[in-house]
Amino acid sequence: MKIDIFAHIFPKSYFDKMVKVAPGGKDMHKRVRNVPSIVDLDERFRIMDRFDEYVQVICLGSPPIEVFGPPSISREMAKLANDGMAELVRKHRDRFPGFIASLPMNDPEGLLAEAERAIKELGAVGVQVFTNVLGRPLTRPETMPLFDLMAKLDRPVWIHPARGADFPDYKEEPKSHYEIWWTFGWPYETSVAMAHLVFSGLFDKYPEIKIITHHLGGMIPYFEGRVG
Amino acid sequence: MKIDIFAHIFPKSYFDKMVKVAPGGKDMHKRVRNVPSIVDLDERFRIMDRFDEYVQVICLGSPPIEVFGPPSISREMAKLANDGMAELVRKHRDRFPGFIASLPMNDPEGLLAEAERAIKELGAVGVQVFTNVLGRPLTRPETMPLFDLMAKLDRPVWIHPARGADFPDYKEEPKSHYEIWWTFGWPYETSVAMAHLVFSGLFDKYPEIKIITHHLGGMIPYFEGRVG
Repeated sequence: MKIDIFAHIFPKSYFDKMVKVAPGGKDMHKRVRNVPSIVDLDERFRIMDRFDEYVQVICLGSPPIEVFGPPSISREMAKLANDGMAELVRKHRDRFPGFIASLPMNDPEGLLAEAERAIKELGAVGVQVFTNVLGRPLTRPETMPLFDLMAKLDRPVWIHPARGADFPDYKEEPKSHYEIWWTFGWPYETSVAMAHLVFSGLFDKYPEIKIITHHLGGMIPYFEGRVG
Repeated sequence: MKIDIFAHIFPKSYFDKMVKVAPGGKDMHKRVRNVPSIVDLDERFRIMDRFDEYVQVICLGSPPIEVFGPPSISREMAKLANDGMAELVRKHRDRFPGFIASLPMNDPEGLLAEAERAIKELGAVGVQVFTNVLGRPLTRPETMPLFDLMAKLDRPVWIHPARGADFPDYKEEPKSHYEIWWTFGWPYETSVAMAHLVFSGLFDKYPEIKIITHHLGGMIPYFEGRVG
């Protein structure tokens, strides 16, 4: 059996709310929301049926929900997403053996509460975070307690890159060109986040903690000699 | 025979001037200028002698000379560097079969004149540029004529990464942490520069032009599937 453990989806109720809250999606968000199978289950199942013994552990696609607004909005969006994904798993367990929770990362207390609720009450297999929280590292004091919680619960943290065209390729330019912000920028950003986690001392504190990074771990596997 | 085609050196006269012009080197510049063999020939030869049949095509180390000051300064520094490297090649041809010229990249006319002088009069095997010119891409109208010239002369352009700790890891932070600016930032910056050259149409205009990039081509060989 092939288990895709990083398959993006938008539950219908979340998708509808997202389009209302952020009608003008940009960068990857604009692209992702226009992929029919991201929300249309018939279309998704039609594609999935082309592969034998294939199931998906589902999670939201870009963007991180904290970009939609202040904590009151992102808390509501996270709840909607997690309830929606839990329902998809309940209804289609043969397709979706599990889901990864989304969190309001701009709300230090809310994110912990939602992580506990999603895992303990809804059965989430872990949580998904992005490589930055509104342009800041995951290792800030506001968000580090999430890693303490995930170590305690022994559930993985999935890390997805997040970077838009407004992150310039060059210091003196206002924006990125030629899609570099995601082609190279995403694996770079993943590597940056991984390095920050390592140097924060996370793995000394929790040697057993499980972190799952997108795109084969970004640059790390290929630049291993340069890291050490 | 092993030919190292990207071996950094500071000719003594250039080194002495550099230390006067920029007494407070920072980031990689600070480190490079403190490596004894970068300027001390006895020390360099002692190390080189440990390897059989080993020679070096020499070029300057970081930083790009345009960081030292306005065109009047960088023109003078480039001339000093190239005259110095040419002399090293003349005196130690068994060690240094050739040198790669440095250019005042902040001086659109001066850089072309120095490239021609270094190649035609001093015998430089090519020119070295860095991945950005004072924070801007190599593909700007002020610097693209260098590639026209190098295609015409059929000599390679060596590209070295340049990025300091002041290029932040995250959009909302002022600086890079944990040495990320060079461990991952340098191969990333090399990839960014390579992509800009490709999308500028350079290789459509000059399919035969030779570009030599540091560190095995940055991320490109490993992310080839993502590029196409």
